[in-house]
Amino acid sequence: MLAVTILGNNSALPAFDRHPTAQVVTLDEFLFLVDCGEGTQMQMAKYKIRRSRIQHIFISHLHGDHYFGLIGLITSMGLLGRETALHLYAPAALEALIRLQLDVANTTLPYPLHFHALEDGPLLVGNDRFRINSFPVNHRIPCWGFRFEQVKAPRRLNPEKARAHAIPSSFYDRLKWGENYIGKTGEVIQNDWVTEPAPKGKVYAYSADTCYNEELAMHVAGADLLYHETTYLKDLADRAAMRFHCTTHQAAGIAQKAGVGRLLIGHFSSKYDRLDQFETEAREVFPNTSLAIEGVSYRV
Amino acid sequence: MLAVTILGNNSALPAFDRHPTAQVVTLDEFLFLVDCGEGTQMQMAKYKIRRSRIQHIFISHLHGDHYFGLIGLITSMGLLGRETALHLYAPAALEALIRLQLDVANTTLPYPLHFHALEDGPLLVGNDRFRINSFPVNHRIPCWGFRFEQVKAPRRLNPEKARAHAIPSSFYDRLKWGENYIGKTGEVIQNDWVTEPAPKGKVYAYSADTCYNEELAMHVAGADLLYHETTYLKDLADRAAMRFHCTTHQAAGIAQKAGVGRLLIGHFSSKYDRLDQFETEAREVFPNTSLAIEGVSYRV
Repeated sequence: MLAVTILGNNSALPAFDRHPTAQVVTLDEFLFLVDCGEGTQMQMAKYKIRRSRIQHIFISHLHGDHYFGLIGLITSMGLLGRETALHLYAPAALEALIRLQLDVANTTLPYPLHFHALEDGPLLVGNDRFRINSFPVNHRIPCWGFRFEQVKAPRRLNPEKARAHAIPSSFYDRLKWGENYIGKTGEVIQNDWVTEPAPKGKVYAYSADTCYNEELAMHVAGADLLYHETTYLKDLADRAAMRFHCTTHQAAGIAQKAGVGRLLIGHFSSKYDRLDQFETEAREVFPNTSLAIEGVSYRV
Repeated sequence: MLAVTILGNNSALPAFDRHPTAQVVTLDEFLFLVDCGEGTQMQMAKYKIRRSRIQHIFISHLHGDHYFGLIGLITSMGLLGRETALHLYAPAALEALIRLQLDVANTTLPYPLHFHALEDGPLLVGNDRFRINSFPVNHRIPCWGFRFEQVKAPRRLNPEKARAHAIPSSFYDRLKWGENYIGKTGEVIQNDWVTEPAPKGKVYAYSADTCYNEELAMHVAGADLLYHETTYLKDLADRAAMRFHCTTHQAAGIAQKAGVGRLLIGHFSSKYDRLDQFETEAREVFPNTSLAIEGVSYRV
């Protein structure tokens, strides 16, 4: 299972009850927090996402609307008596900042906090079923996007066929991972007689803040779902370029070039009170586009 | 005019839609922000307090629930094109922290930001009509309370009496500030023949976070309105002492000793979903007590 839940869909200034960037990626039983603007812990409470389930947090860059809520979340986890380690994947400079904030409050966290610098390389964390990579994007300060990828899913077992070949249920797990079975008389039961291929692993890519940048299409190529920032409507391409942000048409153009399945757009400028025009414009270029709405989960 | 508007009435963990500490003190035409927990800028938007009107911010101490919203507010003011200087009165260590947060974002504020260390002494700022002082309180880390005081109000002029003594209206302002008038034939018109004493200047005192500390009564003596923290109900005096906080009865006891006019209680622990018992208990000791409710203005 791969899904993303939007906690904040606005750009720098909170406005119209829209919040700065934060989202939760669900990958099977794991929750990953991506960016953490001011008020993220309140948004998590509002949408009933348990802080204790977060073990990995990814911060794309050090503009405040992407991390000012982090220190509050970290210290609240401590006040709640957390003991489980927390891993932070962020630009290296964040570590000194967090340490300083804990120091001036004379606070010692009751759990281990591990920093992983995004400058160290693209592979951030993974296991046998998924991997999470970063990729560089082009913003005013160093900034990274993230790619969540299911690398291996078990094959689908047909229990009736397995029973017909007298395979004991204790072997079912090994069947799901592709093994053949040798029967009592030495005959080989081919795996594909009793299983079907695993569904293709899903991919979710998060663009972070970026100017229009065709190289991005390479990093997010083939994603089933791409979240791409659209700070401005298409008539403000000049302003977008000046501020290293994107318009609706630019985001949708990247989605098209990258051949993604579906586009989710967010990071809306606070100059817009209504959002419907964002969807209309993006769909002119890439029809399978949705607005990122706070509190909504998008299944990949 | 002296009043305080509550933006956050909760202690460390935001809960039950209650927010960490922040309040706005209105003194005639000036607005002062006192503490700035996470989400304060959103609370200001909700309660229609214009960020641009704030020129002075007071931070009592460097526990996050009193300042994590500050950097967001400061940078938002910049994004909105503010040019007016902003003055910060805070523990000295805050300056390096803010500078670092601006540095990592490569941000230059478009307005001057002046830091004033609370360690430098009690008189923070004032003019001919009011003064704002700090006083030390006893918390786990260095912490200060603030006293807002109207020092001089003009005397009340009786225009009929002034006309009866043939005093020109161009001299009325000087009458209000206590001068006598010398008439055309050299006779002295005593000021108090045509004016009445000014109303007594009002005082608002903010306790910040503190353990039970009888010395505090001296610093807040005679205040018309005292805001005192009450993190816990009276049965948790041990926990309050351990964490350098106060109970309802302790806060009310300080109000009584200090001879204040009215007590406002806040900084409620997130372990309590309902607040009515706080008011009931505090009134057992000090009847003129009110709960600090978010969005409500209390006129001093």
